[in-house]
Amino acid sequence: MTNFRTEKDCLGEMQIPDSDYYGIQTHRMEKVSGCAGLPVIFYPDMHYALAQIKKAAAKANGRIGAMPQEVADAIVQACDEVLTGKYNDQFPLDMWQGGGYTCVNMNVNEVVSNRANEILTGEKGTSKVHPNTHVNMGQSTNDTIPSATHLGMIGRVDKMICELTKLAKSFRNKQEEFKDIVKVGRTCWQDALPLTLGQEFGGFASVTERLVRKLQHLRPGCFEIVMGGSAVGTGFSAAPGYKETIYEELTKQYGEKVSPMEDLFDGFQNPDFIVEMSGTVKEVAMTLSKICKDLRLMSSGPRSGFMEIQLPALSPGSSIMPGKINPTVPEMVIQISHQVVGNDVAIAMAYDEGELDLNVWDATFYKCLFESFQLVNSEIEILRVHCVDGIKANAARCAQEANSSIALSTVVATALGYPMGVKVAHYCEANNKTVKEAVIEMGLMTEEEAQKLVDPMLMTNPHAMAPVVDAFKKEKHVI
Amino acid sequence: MTNFRTEKDCLGEMQIPDSDYYGIQTHRMEKVSGCAGLPVIFYPDMHYALAQIKKAAAKANGRIGAMPQEVADAIVQACDEVLTGKYNDQFPLDMWQGGGYTCVNMNVNEVVSNRANEILTGEKGTSKVHPNTHVNMGQSTNDTIPSATHLGMIGRVDKMICELTKLAKSFRNKQEEFKDIVKVGRTCWQDALPLTLGQEFGGFASVTERLVRKLQHLRPGCFEIVMGGSAVGTGFSAAPGYKETIYEELTKQYGEKVSPMEDLFDGFQNPDFIVEMSGTVKEVAMTLSKICKDLRLMSSGPRSGFMEIQLPALSPGSSIMPGKINPTVPEMVIQISHQVVGNDVAIAMAYDEGELDLNVWDATFYKCLFESFQLVNSEIEILRVHCVDGIKANAARCAQEANSSIALSTVVATALGYPMGVKVAHYCEANNKTVKEAVIEMGLMTEEEAQKLVDPMLMTNPHAMAPVVDAFKKEKHVI
Amino acid sequence: MTNFRTEKDCLGEMQIPDSDYYGIQTHRMEKVSGCAGLPVIFYPDMHYALAQIKKAAAKANGRIGAMPQEVADAIVQACDEVLTGKYNDQFPLDMWQGGGYTCVNMNVNEVVSNRANEILTGEKGTSKVHPNTHVNMGQSTNDTIPSATHLGMIGRVDKMICELTKLAKSFRNKQEEFKDIVKVGRTCWQDALPLTLGQEFGGFASVTERLVRKLQHLRPGCFEIVMGGSAVGTGFSAAPGYKETIYEELTKQYGEKVSPMEDLFDGFQNPDFIVEMSGTVKEVAMTLSKICKDLRLMSSGPRSGFMEIQLPALSPGSSIMPGKINPTVPEMVIQISHQVVGNDVAIAMAYDEGELDLNVWDATFYKCLFESFQLVNSEIEILRVHCVDGIKANAARCAQEANSSIALSTVVATALGYPMGVKVAHYCEANNKTVKEAVIEMGLMTEEEAQKLVDPMLMTNPHAMAPVVDAFKKEKHVI
Amino acid sequence: MTNFRTEKDCLGEMQIPDSDYYGIQTHRMEKVSGCAGLPVIFYPDMHYALAQIKKAAAKANGRIGAMPQEVADAIVQACDEVLTGKYNDQFPLDMWQGGGYTCVNMNVNEVVSNRANEILTGEKGTSKVHPNTHVNMGQSTNDTIPSATHLGMIGRVDKMICELTKLAKSFRNKQEEFKDIVKVGRTCWQDALPLTLGQEFGGFASVTERLVRKLQHLRPGCFEIVMGGSAVGTGFSAAPGYKETIYEELTKQYGEKVSPMEDLFDGFQNPDFIVEMSGTVKEVAMTLSKICKDLRLMSSGPRSGFMEIQLPALSPGSSIMPGKINPTVPEMVIQISHQVVGNDVAIAMAYDEGELDLNVWDATFYKCLFESFQLVNSEIEILRVHCVDGIKANAARCAQEANSSIALSTVVATALGYPMGVKVAHYCEANNKTVKEAVIEMGLMTEEEAQKLVDPMLMTNPHAMAPVVDAFKKEKHVI
Repeated sequence: MTNFRTEKDCLGEMQIPDSDYYGIQTHRMEKVSGCAGLPVIFYPDMHYALAQIKKAAAKANGRIGAMPQEVADAIVQACDEVLTGKYNDQFPLDMWQGGGYTCVNMNVNEVVSNRANEILTGEKGTSKVHPNTHVNMGQSTNDTIPSATHLGMIGRVDKMICELTKLAKSFRNKQEEFKDIVKVGRTCWQDALPLTLGQEFGGFASVTERLVRKLQHLRPGCFEIVMGGSAVGTGFSAAPGYKETIYEELTKQYGEKVSPMEDLFDGFQNPDFIVEMSGTVKEVAMTLSKICKDLRLMSSGPRSGFMEIQLPALSPGSSIMPGKINPTVPEMVIQISHQVVGNDVAIAMAYDEGELDLNVWDATFYKCLFESFQLVNSEIEILRVHCVDGIKANAARCAQEANSSIALSTVVATALGYPMGVKVAHYCEANNKTVKEAVIEMGLMTEEEAQKLVDPMLMTNPHAMAPVVDAFKKEKHVI
Repeated sequence: MTNFRTEKDCLGEMQIPDSDYYGIQTHRMEKVSGCAGLPVIFYPDMHYALAQIKKAAAKANGRIGAMPQEVADAIVQACDEVLTGKYNDQFPLDMWQGGGYTCVNMNVNEVVSNRANEILTGEKGTSKVHPNTHVNMGQSTNDTIPSATHLGMIGRVDKMICELTKLAKSFRNKQEEFKDIVKVGRTCWQDALPLTLGQEFGGFASVTERLVRKLQHLRPGCFEIVMGGSAVGTGFSAAPGYKETIYEELTKQYGEKVSPMEDLFDGFQNPDFIVEMSGTVKEVAMTLSKICKDLRLMSSGPRSGFMEIQLPALSPGSSIMPGKINPTVPEMVIQISHQVVGNDVAIAMAYDEGELDLNVWDATFYKCLFESFQLVNSEIEILRVHCVDGIKANAARCAQEANSSIALSTVVATALGYPMGVKVAHYCEANNKTVKEAVIEMGLMTEEEAQKLVDPMLMTNPHAMAPVVDAFKKEKHVI
Repeated sequence: MTNFRTEKDCLGEMQIPDSDYYGIQTHRMEKVSGCAGLPVIFYPDMHYALAQIKKAAAKANGRIGAMPQEVADAIVQACDEVLTGKYNDQFPLDMWQGGGYTCVNMNVNEVVSNRANEILTGEKGTSKVHPNTHVNMGQSTNDTIPSATHLGMIGRVDKMICELTKLAKSFRNKQEEFKDIVKVGRTCWQDALPLTLGQEFGGFASVTERLVRKLQHLRPGCFEIVMGGSAVGTGFSAAPGYKETIYEELTKQYGEKVSPMEDLFDGFQNPDFIVEMSGTVKEVAMTLSKICKDLRLMSSGPRSGFMEIQLPALSPGSSIMPGKINPTVPEMVIQISHQVVGNDVAIAMAYDEGELDLNVWDATFYKCLFESFQLVNSEIEILRVHCVDGIKANAARCAQEANSSIALSTVVATALGYPMGVKVAHYCEANNKTVKEAVIEMGLMTEEEAQKLVDPMLMTNPHAMAPVVDAFKKEKHVI
Repeated sequence: MTNFRTEKDCLGEMQIPDSDYYGIQTHRMEKVSGCAGLPVIFYPDMHYALAQIKKAAAKANGRIGAMPQEVADAIVQACDEVLTGKYNDQFPLDMWQGGGYTCVNMNVNEVVSNRANEILTGEKGTSKVHPNTHVNMGQSTNDTIPSATHLGMIGRVDKMICELTKLAKSFRNKQEEFKDIVKVGRTCWQDALPLTLGQEFGGFASVTERLVRKLQHLRPGCFEIVMGGSAVGTGFSAAPGYKETIYEELTKQYGEKVSPMEDLFDGFQNPDFIVEMSGTVKEVAMTLSKICKDLRLMSSGPRSGFMEIQLPALSPGSSIMPGKINPTVPEMVIQISHQVVGNDVAIAMAYDEGELDLNVWDATFYKCLFESFQLVNSEIEILRVHCVDGIKANAARCAQEANSSIALSTVVATALGYPMGVKVAHYCEANNKTVKEAVIEMGLMTEEEAQKLVDPMLMTNPHAMAPVVDAFKKEKHVI
């Protein structure tokens, strides 16, 4: 048999099953909740950051004497329990909520206050601790939710930095491994000058490292929040000393300096940091997508594609064609990029539609940003472990490509002028010859000279190439 | 103690816990699965449609003699069981997968074949039924997955049509209820000519009904699929008679004509129907978002906004300000629109990046389209029940607005020319008068004439207004 | 020496150079105009449609006696002159304007009224014809601008239908030309079952024809407009008979039935037709982009790519590498698709942000939609003439690809079961053999049987293939 | 009579009108050019930056002896002439071009070489100076175009910083001007706690200043380029010493350090700087859009809206309603934001679709980014001069709003607990009273106390408020 307790808010009373730590306001919102079938706590960062904030506020209000110490202590204990995850099932509300996530803040206030009351009295209820008067003291949804969004990002950003760093290392390893494999370069998917496979992977490593630097540049913004602004930025209702103290407590709890934005009215009006963060996560997703498209193209085949590299085989690639293997991991990364770009558009709309003294579109921001975080952070590890680390080069194929490329005629253009380069290119096409064959047959170089100059590997290193060309030009009395 | 069975595919062997209906290929993909933390079956439409397809294929292959009848029967039974939802936990793969969802098709093949083998032999395994040879007979991932996506939409589209129809009815009710409430119209958020609140809600109803018609126009496309194309559209591997027969079976199963796209190569290359469906769902989401913004603005206040209507109060709107009520349902709808627009961008990218003989970006299509379906279908009911049906008009406020509007000077422009209208408008501004007061004080109309002509309600009905203006103009000898 | 005339509006007086047909309100807006450096008339459709509307309104108001016939006649003549393009330089306002393009409507009203006055009196000014009282009679910006946007689309849609029809014909020609060229199919960019190049181009033709049908389905919406609604949909200020008559006149002018939307309040609130049209133009752009990516990939090389087809060479493809030719036309089409998708997002935002009794974001709609029309309509012709019509197949390369594909082992799977297909595939990989070689060496088929069954061309036609497989299976006693 | 000269490239010969400085390759591309009807030089930044690069390359190649000094000098002079704008009509190519803008690079090479040849010989042609061999020496399209895009941004970024700085100053002026005007705050468009109009404008100033800092953070990236990479990043074809020297020359020409990206392969592969810049321009556009929506809402009325401020009247706001004035400038800014978000999506797609050794989607990047620059830079000045600087506050209305707000009951919640705040709020609603009236009538405060505590202005300044509440609580013996 279920026991009930009576709760009351400004709209009236309700009977609440006494096993529920969450209370009347959460219950009210449950009936308009459930669109996604996915609770906010599916990404637990928001709730844990709110618990940190409630804890810090209680400590602060206790220290400055605005709240009885025993109440503060009970709230702190309740928050610590929330942080263990044991009450996750007490946060039932769906991801998509209006009212600037007032109900999410209240859900936390209710769970913490009921638990705190229980600690103090053995029973849930408000006899000693009230969700608004105590747990929410000095706060408002309008400062706690945006602040929790910022603080909630920290772990995600750190994870992304860590994963990207490992991935960059993997690319560096491949750069080294492939440094002697010369292949045809391609621009507009047409054969171009040669480069090494190592140089290509070095490019992948370099951009990945730059992405890490971009995240590091943004990271401090996660620690700049709007606590102390309460409902509209003025900070009304907070006790003297509260603001300074809550930042001290948060700094202790997070182990790094947490500080208020310079102008809290601005902070309430403009969640531009979220836009910037989403933009950077989008850059990560798109850059990895680009690299994955390259891996897919370079591994196309196995008999009628580019066939320059081979990706690890993870599973059969067809339900009908035996032996077919698909580049499933790169394709997953590419598709996730679609979602992350889409989420970035959603975030842009929510930012653009900000209004007056508060941008209230927290659900859009939270769901879209943290879904993007979740997807990208997961994909990086999979990409590294199950794809990049196992890539093998097809050296023979690369060499054959490099030597057959008509773009090697550029060496002729360099040594004997662009018009002569054009003639050689034409000769190759018309007679289906390699450039090396052509220059010999056309009498432009001896076999020995051709061997030296029309060397794809040498062409990947202009410092080594230049004196060779120079010597040739001198000998031939060009300019 | 767990028992294991040995399974084998083209990459080798694996020990599979014998309690699992899913097999080696699904197990292989589990290790690169999990990015979202959300399995494909979170939206079960895909799996159920695949079960319908496998069932129809087994029936067809049985009928044409390509498969022993007992195997066909066992597969049909297994598919029917899958359709009850009892094996939902046997589909563990994450939403984001490459390879054109080959693994999703294979997961279904494996579960169905293990269950069918069990039916026939009492044991899982491939002794009688093989996932590729039998369950997938005549098919390929490349025709089953896109076909399942189409068939999976049917229920979603029907639900949306049903919900929008109910919502339109609610708007029509409000149109009737508010037909005598005259208010100021607004363009560019500036006071304009009067209209009735009923006319505004009639506009909401009208567009909602048009959205229903758009969905009805698209609906038949859900029944046009690419079964019979197998791997690249040629239909290679299917037995003679298979194609015709599977469409007969699907038609029976769905109770409506299911038919092949005219050109299957086109069908494999171009999932434009998904783009079009997403575009229409986006129109629904954005149109409701627009209406919700209006409801929000019209209910702004309670003391310093537009205050023309009142929305039902669902829960306290602030954790700090007593008595504040937020328009949470409209705000939820607005935010969902952000996501749906974002998803539409993701889908656009996936369509744009189609390639060669198959668009393989099924994960983007499925996740983004069905998330949008899920969100919009849920929000419509909530919007209707918890918001629209409970809207109350603030008649007094509306009337006061309507009468004070300077835009009523348009009646003067109509009767006495635009320049005279301008003069009246200026008089109102300079002297803080209503138009009715102004025309009397300026000697343009008698009090009785003003009473008749400067009547906002009359201005909402030009058929009634015209003779009144006409009579006045004649009397005054204007033109 | 410049002569000036004095003009006056509700904000005061201004001296206007008498050579200008446009007047005070246009002059006022010039100072906040110019952001894009591109006038609205860069796409002249809006102004010409407005001239048609002004003409029809004058005819209607003349017929019903609301306007002196000589004034109506002069307005009609002035509108006809505007339609010749001779006053295009009298429409100086920039593309980006607020106020729902009030200034664009007024600019037309001013030019027409000054010209009409000049016709009647020999002088510009308002002595006989007034821009608001006469040229704008019965109208408002709020009904003329959206109506002009609709009517302005007609020519663009017709052009797109015409160009796509020609392009589809070109693809059909290539389908016929390439019907005997068998090649490897590709899914996930991996070798798959064979098909013909003709089948691929048939798919291109088929989707292009479907796009034509989609445009034809939408076209009637261009003729449904909101004239008669005046400022907020009520139609206030129009004389009795005006609404019916203006539609009769527009129908005459356009030569096809022009009719009012069913509910004008809805029509004012919701420009969803623009969203739908933009969505369809986006589908066209993206579908062509997809095809162009295929053309680019199939023509990659000339020595180390797919090399299945050759595109016409338009210009040297490098400033440094002699002989390189780029697929410039496909790349132009791909990039235009980016812009069209971007414009569609802009339009989505503008639709989503509609408000109350009028969606006022006409600048976003007009610029973005007509830029997309302009780009796509131009690209189709270029794509057809300078690319598609000149494509040549590389038959030898295609054949070589088709024969070497391991996916041909599917024929073994079909004839001898999937597990045997896997064995053959493994044998091919391990020994670098073709499937034909493998089945002979493995003793699965005689050379004659292999010749018959492992035939890529036959595999593209399952109707022909089935009896061959069947006969083989019977002979080998496979079920 | 037109004279012609014969020109030749790798595709053959052509007769060129001798008046044209542009040559055969540009002429070839003209026939597939013209989709937009807008030449690349509509935004001249690209061409001018290319002229700077060609100039620096000539200087460098002259200094290191790779090019005869007289040729170098002539090229430098020709580039300087291009920089005056006098040859702008010699750059006819349309914005949308494939081939990574090879034709744009070649167009500049041709104009400069013909002019340089003319300087040296009196005639156009290639007798002394060749477009590829000399003007393009050591370069490729693939390093010049991306480098020119970066360098071309400098002026745009500087302009944006300058305009935003002025706008922030205007907001600061208004902050000061409105510092004593107390009004109701609004969250979810519902009446909330009071703040001052000055605080709101301070928020606008603060975010504008932050945008300036974001641009300053990005600015150095404009000076990091990929010159020296030539065709694929290896730098092949450049003479020894060329790379160092061209950077020295560019540094001189730009007056600030110009330097190469660390890894040129990365630089060729990844134009992420463009994505980041577009993201920041998008932030600027959206932030201003948000502010403009606020201005529009705060100025809604004049009789039935929020009516807190008045915007400068620029022109009549209706063609039918006398006296209506629209917020045209804010509406222009809002619509431009739609375009900028759309352009950002286009750029995202182009980045995501980068491939192999070069991202070739330069047309998308250039058109979309520079259109966004152009629009935003222009709108800021118009917004400042024609809107923000002329805003006037409606102090009486603001005060009336602030005093009537039920949210003032928060002061009761603060002083006497949340439940008592709720009771006061209910009392106000039920009896249509202000909070001040309510607390007196309910006997919670004396008139004097109410006068002191229920003071909206005091509530905007919690430092001043706290002791007042404290004193009251002590007196009433609350906690």
